[in-house]
Amino acid sequence: MDKYVIGLDIGGTNMRGALLDGNEEQVDELKVPSQAHFGIERLVDNLIELVERIRGSKTIYGIGLGIPGIIDSAKGVITAAPNIAHVKDYPIRSVLNDRLGADINLVIENDANMVGLGEWRKGAGKEVDSMIMITIGTGLGGGLILDGELWSGAHGMGGEIGHMTINPEGPLCNCGSYGCLETYASAVAIRRMVAEALSDGSVATSLRDKVRDAGPADIPELVMEAALGGDEVALGIWQALGKALGIAIASLQNLLDVDMVVLGGGIANAWDFFIRTAEEEAALRGFSAPMEKLSIEKSVLGDDAGILGAGYLALKK
Amino acid sequence: MDKYVIGLDIGGTNMRGALLDGNEEQVDELKVPSQAHFGIERLVDNLIELVERIRGSKTIYGIGLGIPGIIDSAKGVITAAPNIAHVKDYPIRSVLNDRLGADINLVIENDANMVGLGEWRKGAGKEVDSMIMITIGTGLGGGLILDGELWSGAHGMGGEIGHMTINPEGPLCNCGSYGCLETYASAVAIRRMVAEALSDGSVATSLRDKVRDAGPADIPELVMEAALGGDEVALGIWQALGKALGIAIASLQNLLDVDMVVLGGGIANAWDFFIRTAEEEAALRGFSAPMEKLSIEKSVLGDDAGILGAGYLALKK
Repeated sequence: MDKYVIGLDIGGTNMRGALLDGNEEQVDELKVPSQAHFGIERLVDNLIELVERIRGSKTIYGIGLGIPGIIDSAKGVITAAPNIAHVKDYPIRSVLNDRLGADINLVIENDANMVGLGEWRKGAGKEVDSMIMITIGTGLGGGLILDGELWSGAHGMGGEIGHMTINPEGPLCNCGSYGCLETYASAVAIRRMVAEALSDGSVATSLRDKVRDAGPADIPELVMEAALGGDEVALGIWQALGKALGIAIASLQNLLDVDMVVLGGGIANAWDFFIRTAEEEAALRGFSAPMEKLSIEKSVLGDDAGILGAGYLALKK
Repeated sequence: MDKYVIGLDIGGTNMRGALLDGNEEQVDELKVPSQAHFGIERLVDNLIELVERIRGSKTIYGIGLGIPGIIDSAKGVITAAPNIAHVKDYPIRSVLNDRLGADINLVIENDANMVGLGEWRKGAGKEVDSMIMITIGTGLGGGLILDGELWSGAHGMGGEIGHMTINPEGPLCNCGSYGCLETYASAVAIRRMVAEALSDGSVATSLRDKVRDAGPADIPELVMEAALGGDEVALGIWQALGKALGIAIASLQNLLDVDMVVLGGGIANAWDFFIRTAEEEAALRGFSAPMEKLSIEKSVLGDDAGILGAGYLALKK
């Protein structure tokens, strides 16, 4: 079968592309800088170049595109994507169809939805029909696979698990609300919890020295190190994260009753430090019947999930 | 078209049935006591008799059955239904197929799911593809219609909007968790809020006299009366209910991105006292793009939604 598609994952720093054949097998992969800080036009130029290079002389049936932000996938429009460019209602699909050809089938989704599709199709969820993907990185993204279909909403803006309210009186979230899951379970949340712990000068913790000269991006890794060393403050931070995840998982399972929740993203690497708390909290809160049907698993594809999910969606549409 | 189905709505006190023709038009309706307190066998006997009476000499293609409880709709089993009978894993579908004939297509769902289907098919949601039904009565039930399909979960146990956590430190819920939506938005919640308000003897409120000799079932109606009279405590109770609903609606819309939320059940009759607070809280918390796509409407079918939804599902399957 010589039906090829490209799965793309756009980030603020890099963009990655995978060439997939009609059997969903990856035959090539490429990564280039996105240069998003030069604006959306430069990003689109780089994206076009990536597509040209990866397709070579092959005819492309479709392209799947995962973008971090609020995406109106029905219209093929980036509603807002503050992490890659300050655009509003940018018609990415029609821009790309103009440049690449109107015959190429273009599907656009929030990147976390593509990660969910990839993990369901090729990763931890490949044996189940219904799965919730929770990607814990700088923020917290989600993707819902219900009976073998991505549910990204009536307008393609759903799946925002990170912005379910966990505690109405909780911390201010980047989204403007308070106490969203993301304010408890994300790199941003970990930095907040570290700062709060250290603000009390009497608290003894190895984190105080560890984080003194660290950049914000390094903090989660340092909290993992400290937890490995038995630091009580660090262990408490992972437990707080686990508890919030458990609250969210119970609400999600009572609502959606799926087969599996998959946790991915860089923060999920602290698995051993939060998963037991998360499972206990979820079991305490969720109805026992659907909770007994649920397994909670760690992502197996890592960074490849997004491009594989995007490629799959392009093949399917 | 002479393809007939029966839609049934089972309650602890009464059960209602509607005979629908192949065009989803209701041609007959019947209501009988369920006598659930005599046990599940008596309830099933009464149900069979209701079916026999309502079908008369007509050939029935299918029966849809809405039951309050945790239903494994895939297996046709009542996992638990404390409000109608103390059964566990009761195989209602096979029991009914044994008595009514194996050729009758039987679909079983939680009653709130059937209400959602009915309201979507024939009521407030008939112009939209994706809708969330929230039924506020003694407890709080939910039904999810996603792109024209009921999503009741991989095992038929989903849609439990009333048991999403709204506040992890909130009141103990009947389900064993804390701070579920149902503990803030239901008749049970209103009774709790009234009791809490009256426990401070210094609070001046017309509720003190109104509820003195009232039965528990009458309390919500009395809180509506008091609110109509301008009672500040009563108005505050409806606002607290509205705020909790708003928190839940924002989480639901960020997660599921639907076209419409429909609020029904007896408590929704206090609409004017809580809807503005609910809408304001939801707008404050939800992402603006999907919130702008959402309308929040009041149920138009009332008690008929459940039987019409059950009949529709039987016709469709």
